[in-house]
Amino acid sequence: MDIRTQKTFEALFALEDIRETLRQRLPNVTGPEDESSILEGVSKVRKILDDIEAGTGTPQVRKIASNIDIRSREEMYINIQPIQAAGRLTPEARKALIAYGDGYSTCDACRKPFRLDKITSPPIAPFHEQLASFVNMDAARVIPGARRGFQAVASTLVEKGDSVIVSGLAHYTEFLAVEEAGGVVKEVPINEHNLVTPDATAEKIEAVKKETGKLPVLVMIDHFDYQYANEHDVKSIAKVAHQYDIPFLYNGAYTVGVMPVDGKEIGADFVVGSGHKSMASPAPSGVLATTSEWAPKIFRTTQMVGDVTKRKFGIKEVEMLGCTLMGSTLIGMMASFPTVKERVNHWEEEVKKSNYFIDGLLAIEGSKVLSEYKRKHTLSKVDTTNSFDIVAKSHKRKGFFLSDELSSRGIIGEFAGATRVWKLNTYGLSWEKIRYLLDTFQNIADKHEIKVNRG
Amino acid sequence: MDIRTQKTFEALFALEDIRETLRQRLPNVTGPEDESSILEGVSKVRKILDDIEAGTGTPQVRKIASNIDIRSREEMYINIQPIQAAGRLTPEARKALIAYGDGYSTCDACRKPFRLDKITSPPIAPFHEQLASFVNMDAARVIPGARRGFQAVASTLVEKGDSVIVSGLAHYTEFLAVEEAGGVVKEVPINEHNLVTPDATAEKIEAVKKETGKLPVLVMIDHFDYQYANEHDVKSIAKVAHQYDIPFLYNGAYTVGVMPVDGKEIGADFVVGSGHKSMASPAPSGVLATTSEWAPKIFRTTQMVGDVTKRKFGIKEVEMLGCTLMGSTLIGMMASFPTVKERVNHWEEEVKKSNYFIDGLLAIEGSKVLSEYKRKHTLSKVDTTNSFDIVAKSHKRKGFFLSDELSSRGIIGEFAGATRVWKLNTYGLSWEKIRYLLDTFQNIADKHEIKVNRG
Repeated sequence: MDIRTQKTFEALFALEDIRETLRQRLPNVTGPEDESSILEGVSKVRKILDDIEAGTGTPQVRKIASNIDIRSREEMYINIQPIQAAGRLTPEARKALIAYGDGYSTCDACRKPFRLDKITSPPIAPFHEQLASFVNMDAARVIPGARRGFQAVASTLVEKGDSVIVSGLAHYTEFLAVEEAGGVVKEVPINEHNLVTPDATAEKIEAVKKETGKLPVLVMIDHFDYQYANEHDVKSIAKVAHQYDIPFLYNGAYTVGVMPVDGKEIGADFVVGSGHKSMASPAPSGVLATTSEWAPKIFRTTQMVGDVTKRKFGIKEVEMLGCTLMGSTLIGMMASFPTVKERVNHWEEEVKKSNYFIDGLLAIEGSKVLSEYKRKHTLSKVDTTNSFDIVAKSHKRKGFFLSDELSSRGIIGEFAGATRVWKLNTYGLSWEKIRYLLDTFQNIADKHEIKVNRG
Repeated sequence: MDIRTQKTFEALFALEDIRETLRQRLPNVTGPEDESSILEGVSKVRKILDDIEAGTGTPQVRKIASNIDIRSREEMYINIQPIQAAGRLTPEARKALIAYGDGYSTCDACRKPFRLDKITSPPIAPFHEQLASFVNMDAARVIPGARRGFQAVASTLVEKGDSVIVSGLAHYTEFLAVEEAGGVVKEVPINEHNLVTPDATAEKIEAVKKETGKLPVLVMIDHFDYQYANEHDVKSIAKVAHQYDIPFLYNGAYTVGVMPVDGKEIGADFVVGSGHKSMASPAPSGVLATTSEWAPKIFRTTQMVGDVTKRKFGIKEVEMLGCTLMGSTLIGMMASFPTVKERVNHWEEEVKKSNYFIDGLLAIEGSKVLSEYKRKHTLSKVDTTNSFDIVAKSHKRKGFFLSDELSSRGIIGEFAGATRVWKLNTYGLSWEKIRYLLDTFQNIADKHEIKVNRG
């Protein structure tokens, strides 16, 4: 870790120690011991600031709670890790984590009817309305990860043995959500371009009907899949689903929070998004949005009555299990939300940068992109079997030579050791970083005598 | 907010802004603009430190992301809120939130077999082993809240129409988990001491068998209930359940993380704990632990096979939906764990403080404790209908007079406006704070001419 990054963490931690003294003292009373502890803390931070300013000093704190390293990947590297890019926090979310870290911090002003999405201070209730309108749906709830959204929908719609249509490129969490509900996934085969088409979906629905004597109960398709980040024609697929009166779940784990998503325009009955994947939010977080038609079913309130006490908890929603996402995870999501709402308007620029990088990678002879090209997303699957892997074959570090070369130049997040098929994500990198990233890959190619066709 | 607390937050936030500059720059290159931005940042923090030292200055930052207030309840007040006390973060957890806030921060070194609980860096895999042994069970998983543990167990064991035995004081999330799984809760009536007894449990099991022709499939009892925090004889109740061959779920939301819990000794088949309620952890977090007998069922891996692609995700656990608790929520939990492991050994001292306070409250004439007395927990339900509520009746602020009196003296977390039956939690308060708390209540009584029987 460079010393400035190290010292920035040390200063943050030293301030948390001062804060702890404030927490331990009696209210509004600072005794002599507290006073001297605060003054010591301040003087410690001052010294650290000297080091940040001058770029001097040696690391004083290496671990959190004795066995957890300080994580500095985002400060030290350009991170192209496929799933981390759009989950990186905004500074506002980081401040929210600082202020709202305590477990039930969201619950200070919880009043009747005692449900998370009704709390107005902090402004959780209006956030839920904004979330729904952000994806142009009627109602939304926050959830601990997109998978918990699939689960809530599957648990509501799927009876034992029911079929659910998913993509041949479906994420494993869709498999699990269906399995947990007692259903069976039926995959739509992908075509030669690695795309799920409306026609193939219709054929699959017919085939399932023929095979099982029953229509599938849900069609659940990823707008951009996790494998190639290819764009699938969700709007036409939703139309097909509706022709059979089957509800459509739009999996927006790779879209909600990075590009504009209009659930109504798509014809989605359910929109699921991931906070930690695409909404610059702490994990586990996400959103489940639906229409006013489906809201009473998915967000149905409990009907259970205690047989002895006659207790009812009528306001609590069964699939949400009551309150869903408390504390700093939610407040972090809320703190990033203004930035997230704005950034989706710059998606085309992000795609432009993605293509700029991919074009430059393709200029390295033998390199291929396995995702659809031109890219429509910042996540891409590439194949360097005939470029970097040739070097790896005769290199003593094997595939790790590329990781070594990249990390020594400040790039991280490719799958360490992989030089054949691997994925990367350029989301959120500035043009300056994109150019640096590309130059680095091309320079590594030069160094290892792979021809680069510079334009 | 007092100015020192305010300025401590401002310093933390200003350091996050410096950190953001480090994140935005090219790796290891600090251009002239970055340089001047860092130096400006440092000089800003220095001025804030002057204010912290001298206790001077005026607030410069009032909101996060324009509409979220800075939360300073733990710095400014003694917080007796019933569910927040044992979820307050340790300084280590707060540092973990700072370093690991980014969404998928836990996943940097995720390698085969690609499951959260197998990651060794940060040390997530050993943490899982320690968690299991902490509650003396064979296997454990982290989960996004205790309710997700009830859900996983209910979803595994409960078929449509099955009965599940719960306490007449069961938490609503147990109701919901059973309802979501298609089951029906059957309450054990509580006795005149507000306790669930083994005999009453046996009777209820017999009654359910008679009524439905089938034994209940699960007995799920809170060791300390959320209403009174009375201790229920879980060990004997587990024995009863086992006499009928029914598995027993120990709800440790109010115990795991504050007092020693020995799942095997209790005879629990499942132990569920709450991170944000009792383990000084960010929300939503928790633990589900089980025996080696039950682990293969509750943590069963997916059997689903893609019908077209033949894809299998064999390592992923169905009820966990794969990975459960990523990012800073988990790392915060891990960072607090050494403290949590240690603090359970001081439970008796916590109970002593609880009783000290309750005794002092009872000395205020007309006050009653509705929870079992002597207290065995730090959460208590009290009744001040014949003390503070008498004042409230003729006070222009009604019940809020008490909140006003308390908050002006630095105490917060009682249910604002409530002067009849309300709950409080003294967990984690130092003796100094406990004495201050008690003196404050008695002084308020004095002021309003309620007699106090001082010893």
